[in-house]
Amino acid sequence: MGSNREFLSRMSLNQITTEQLNLEEAVKACTKAEVPWISLWRHKIEEIGLQQSKRLLKDAGLQVSSLCRGGMFPASTKELRQKNLDENRRAVEEAAELGTDVLVLVCGSSLEHDIAACREWVNEGIEELVPYAASHGVKLGIEPLHPMYAADRSVVVTLGEALTIAEKYPAEKVGVVVDVFHVWWDSELYKQIARAEGRILGFHVSDWNVPITDTFKARKLMGDGVIDIPRIRKAVEEAGYHGPIEVEIMNQDLWDLSGDEVLATIKDRFVHYV
Amino acid sequence: MGSNREFLSRMSLNQITTEQLNLEEAVKACTKAEVPWISLWRHKIEEIGLQQSKRLLKDAGLQVSSLCRGGMFPASTKELRQKNLDENRRAVEEAAELGTDVLVLVCGSSLEHDIAACREWVNEGIEELVPYAASHGVKLGIEPLHPMYAADRSVVVTLGEALTIAEKYPAEKVGVVVDVFHVWWDSELYKQIARAEGRILGFHVSDWNVPITDTFKARKLMGDGVIDIPRIRKAVEEAGYHGPIEVEIMNQDLWDLSGDEVLATIKDRFVHYV
Repeated sequence: MGSNREFLSRMSLNQITTEQLNLEEAVKACTKAEVPWISLWRHKIEEIGLQQSKRLLKDAGLQVSSLCRGGMFPASTKELRQKNLDENRRAVEEAAELGTDVLVLVCGSSLEHDIAACREWVNEGIEELVPYAASHGVKLGIEPLHPMYAADRSVVVTLGEALTIAEKYPAEKVGVVVDVFHVWWDSELYKQIARAEGRILGFHVSDWNVPITDTFKARKLMGDGVIDIPRIRKAVEEAGYHGPIEVEIMNQDLWDLSGDEVLATIKDRFVHYV
Repeated sequence: MGSNREFLSRMSLNQITTEQLNLEEAVKACTKAEVPWISLWRHKIEEIGLQQSKRLLKDAGLQVSSLCRGGMFPASTKELRQKNLDENRRAVEEAAELGTDVLVLVCGSSLEHDIAACREWVNEGIEELVPYAASHGVKLGIEPLHPMYAADRSVVVTLGEALTIAEKYPAEKVGVVVDVFHVWWDSELYKQIARAEGRILGFHVSDWNVPITDTFKARKLMGDGVIDIPRIRKAVEEAGYHGPIEVEIMNQDLWDLSGDEVLATIKDRFVHYV
């Protein structure tokens, strides 16, 4: 039990896992469940404003593991890409205000465009964002998404690709986020995790199983799928990451539970399957 | 129109595109639509038997571009893997009987197992199958599937991985099948297609778009998605492949049409978007 308690001190509630709760409710659920970390989503912050959000977090003594999310760089015109960049600057400011030094980047899609062009726009967008983020003390965490999302969410689909972008910058400015759901299938996974040494800014857990009837809400609870989470965690730790581990699960069954039920469930799964 | 006619001489109906038809109906629809090629699925052959199938194909003068499918090598016990191998030997025999020299391999999943072990079992299965296939004049075409299917259909998820297996054997024995739906997202795609020179045994077309509500029936008609099919076709041709192009679309809307409607639709899309 002692080691469970120690391990749970690394657990972070990624707020999308409790999409049914507002920030105040999520903070209360974390406090009650003694979960010390939370990862915030911007649409939840927007509901109550930045100052109220900060107050809630401070009063609860809850630490913020990351802000989700910046990114979404590609767009068909220079003006739209500029607008996306402005939105990213606001995300950087919010991350700094909220007391986290990690802004997660979901880089954006190829839905209306040629995928090679989109990849260039992602590179350009990050290039422009890095100095602004650095000046705010915020690191950019490039999160590769599963190739299933290449058309609608991210053209960066492997850890190797994320690292190739990140390595253009110092490790204290740009790193990567490893989410088991997105990377488990990759035959290069362990090689790329080793390559990521010193650049891992986050580690996210959930599970993969079939059938998938909704790609966005496809994630399962740890232990309900095929991913060898402990093996990936071990590799991530060997690459030097010992920070918070976010439980990030978009799943309607979880969204139909109370906050207390969600927290109790994911703590249990965290201890047994992460 | 002359060049359209010439291009259509490469079109092959992958039989799953007309899952609503039995082989006799599919052959008739091809004949009526002047489609010269068909790719057969084993469950359709089984419905009427090998001899009747051969007779239908011969009477219609329809050429067989490939047989779908062998593979599905991984299993948790040696006995089950042996059973899978026996099934693959039967698939080889059927391919030879049906007059095609290409057996498509969908290599199998990691649903109940560790993905690295499954990849080894795929390698072992192919190793055992190659001599038997070669002795029947049948080439094995390893088809990488989209990583979305890693848990339930194939642990071989990139063209690079398929080639690494294929290259252990002479090109006249083992090659790869390039399906745009499975490979379009890969940043290494064009590099790997070039690497595949002399080993491409098939080229499959469909399209990708969101939302996806059923991973198996997720494919769209060419032109209804984000894939740059002409660019991929050009690369495949530059790598030396000028054989039949299979239209392979698992899609409920198509399955609700008559065979004639399906053939007319895919011919039109083939000419305009492939």
